[in-house]
Amino acid sequence: MKKSILPIILLLILTFGSGVFAQEALFRSQQVVSPEISKGSKVTFRLLAPNAEKVQITGDFLPTVKVDSPMGQVDGPGKADLKKGENGLWEFTSEALDPELYSYSFIIDGFTTIDPNNPFLIRDVASVTNIFIVGGGHADLYKVQDIPHGTVARTWYDSPGLEMKRRITVYTPPGYEKSNEKYPVLYLLHGAGGDEEAWISLGRTAQILDNLIAEGKAKPMIVVMPNGNVIQDAAPGEGSMGFYKPQFMIPGTMNGTYEANFNDVVNFIESNYKVKAEKSSRAIAGLSMGGFHTIHISRYYPNTFDYIGAFSAAIMPREDATAKVYSDIEGTLKKQKDNGYQLYWIGIGKTDFLYDANQEFKEMLNAIDMPYEYVESEGGHTWRNWRVYLSEFSQRIFK
Amino acid sequence: MKKSILPIILLLILTFGSGVFAQEALFRSQQVVSPEISKGSKVTFRLLAPNAEKVQITGDFLPTVKVDSPMGQVDGPGKADLKKGENGLWEFTSEALDPELYSYSFIIDGFTTIDPNNPFLIRDVASVTNIFIVGGGHADLYKVQDIPHGTVARTWYDSPGLEMKRRITVYTPPGYEKSNEKYPVLYLLHGAGGDEEAWISLGRTAQILDNLIAEGKAKPMIVVMPNGNVIQDAAPGEGSMGFYKPQFMIPGTMNGTYEANFNDVVNFIESNYKVKAEKSSRAIAGLSMGGFHTIHISRYYPNTFDYIGAFSAAIMPREDATAKVYSDIEGTLKKQKDNGYQLYWIGIGKTDFLYDANQEFKEMLNAIDMPYEYVESEGGHTWRNWRVYLSEFSQRIFK
Repeated sequence: MKKSILPIILLLILTFGSGVFAQEALFRSQQVVSPEISKGSKVTFRLLAPNAEKVQITGDFLPTVKVDSPMGQVDGPGKADLKKGENGLWEFTSEALDPELYSYSFIIDGFTTIDPNNPFLIRDVASVTNIFIVGGGHADLYKVQDIPHGTVARTWYDSPGLEMKRRITVYTPPGYEKSNEKYPVLYLLHGAGGDEEAWISLGRTAQILDNLIAEGKAKPMIVVMPNGNVIQDAAPGEGSMGFYKPQFMIPGTMNGTYEANFNDVVNFIESNYKVKAEKSSRAIAGLSMGGFHTIHISRYYPNTFDYIGAFSAAIMPREDATAKVYSDIEGTLKKQKDNGYQLYWIGIGKTDFLYDANQEFKEMLNAIDMPYEYVESEGGHTWRNWRVYLSEFSQRIFK
Repeated sequence: MKKSILPIILLLILTFGSGVFAQEALFRSQQVVSPEISKGSKVTFRLLAPNAEKVQITGDFLPTVKVDSPMGQVDGPGKADLKKGENGLWEFTSEALDPELYSYSFIIDGFTTIDPNNPFLIRDVASVTNIFIVGGGHADLYKVQDIPHGTVARTWYDSPGLEMKRRITVYTPPGYEKSNEKYPVLYLLHGAGGDEEAWISLGRTAQILDNLIAEGKAKPMIVVMPNGNVIQDAAPGEGSMGFYKPQFMIPGTMNGTYEANFNDVVNFIESNYKVKAEKSSRAIAGLSMGGFHTIHISRYYPNTFDYIGAFSAAIMPREDATAKVYSDIEGTLKKQKDNGYQLYWIGIGKTDFLYDANQEFKEMLNAIDMPYEYVESEGGHTWRNWRVYLSEFSQRIFK
């Protein structure tokens, strides 16, 4: 840096107006690096907390432990103690970790909070946690590589059915803007408590698609991530409801309204993007509640999608659901089957609490000779699985 | 919600896989509302921290206090004590606050951290703080209103000059996608330590433009927010450098490289968007280092921009800077003046540490009879001022 500029830069740093607030924080955190990933994939976490008496870390990189819940004992995240060093700097180094995107939090004298030295955070419903990526294997799909990148747009569409403008996240593949081609579309649906931000942040959709397309493993495609909560126009903080604490239970998410109006989403995409508006170029997939939506949307519009992905799908409603969308499930599935499709893909983790429900759903499909592919993975109802399911499903479609 | 679905939703909540991690956090925070803004614009902050001995809040909604720094006493953010109530719930209620977007942090036994009940966070360089908006007046421009919204795209462009693909944030106004019109373009540049995320998050650019356009106060325009750090392809975490702690001092930001290659940005926009590729439809503005870039770009390409906005601009380099871009500053300013322009707008806060430098710059402009408009506001080198400057400047351009 030029000598002449340096003192002014220093001045900038030292007296940075409001400024001082942000810069205090900057100085405080500047010396500490956390997390630090070694070449051997061990990860060191550090926290400067001279006044703390006990500092722990919790996260999905630690072995799970059994914890009590109203449902009995369930798997919970492990904890580990940081060790206090000189000047109040606490430290913990993990075992060598497998490639993965991990989440963690610190627990300082019983108070759970973020790592102030790691600004990479993701929100899951109302919880904000730090993340880090141990590269290699499938986790390299989650990294931004030096390859062509698609565009991620947050835009708004008109939903006549829901009588509102609604926010939606759209990934277009590298080269889309300049191309004269028409592209296939994957509609990708979030779970309960999620919104149009869930797949793009927690799901690493843009990174996964960029990487798979660059490797020639996935077809260039548009990925559409709508908001499945019919009472919201947008994610919390992004819509006219302003800032409020996101909730897991949102009214109306599984009463048929979303499915019945899903054509508003498809119409918007097909009239505003360069897409092949035909069944062979439409895929739909979703996780948990989004898997539920996927199953019902794809049979309610039974000749619309050639590729269907149910990721840890909630299999509901039962026979007593009354919305029109949920009537004659078996009949509409048969219609969907008779119309034909390329791939009906079901993925579920062995310890997922929806495991049994998914087995029942398979029996229902078996009973009507409806073909599907079934993938059973380790683990449960986690983003870790859903990122893998997206990586696998997106390689199977539009081919 | 349908009775039949409720137990399954509860099951979902109670045993939500990894799940339990996120959901623990959800339960823990669910009962506490913070911040809560009363109708009288008093704001109550709450924190559940039974083990804490002292909880304070700090933020720019509190009166500033004098704090020691290596530069002597400077303004720092005030602090206030929360009061411990039953069950370890701490609480503090502010005075009635003026309309504004505010930032704050909690200090728990000396440890500064976020409010776990408020998932609305913004990153400024490496610091992450909570935000809230007290509505009314100019702060209503920062809210998402029930009006038509533009699209915010994160895309990548090729910079032959910098020999890399670079990430860029582009706001297109409501109706852009369907329109046959061509639009004017505002190039909006961040300050030191910022990147292509700064204006859209800290600056509330999309909300300000949506609101001003809906009110008919600003012309529909494209706003382009590039990354001014020539060694980065993208914001930290969004580029091929992966996750790392953002720094305030980034090499090469003020050595002329960015200015000399700014035509790569303009070329990308003008060949990929529906824009009027003419001087009368180009504006450029920036804050601090971005104001510096604005001044130098607009005179280095002296017949390119009809509207120039210098927000709390860093006025450098001095006579001893050697990059070609910084040679013959007076001569190129004169050329820019002779070529003509519609508006040269300078905004600076009375307590900004760059106040004197901006007065010197005005004298330089006066000496060559170069016309400009000058706005002096309260306060210093703050996003609070830059949001207002953007709101004012964007109403003055393309008219």
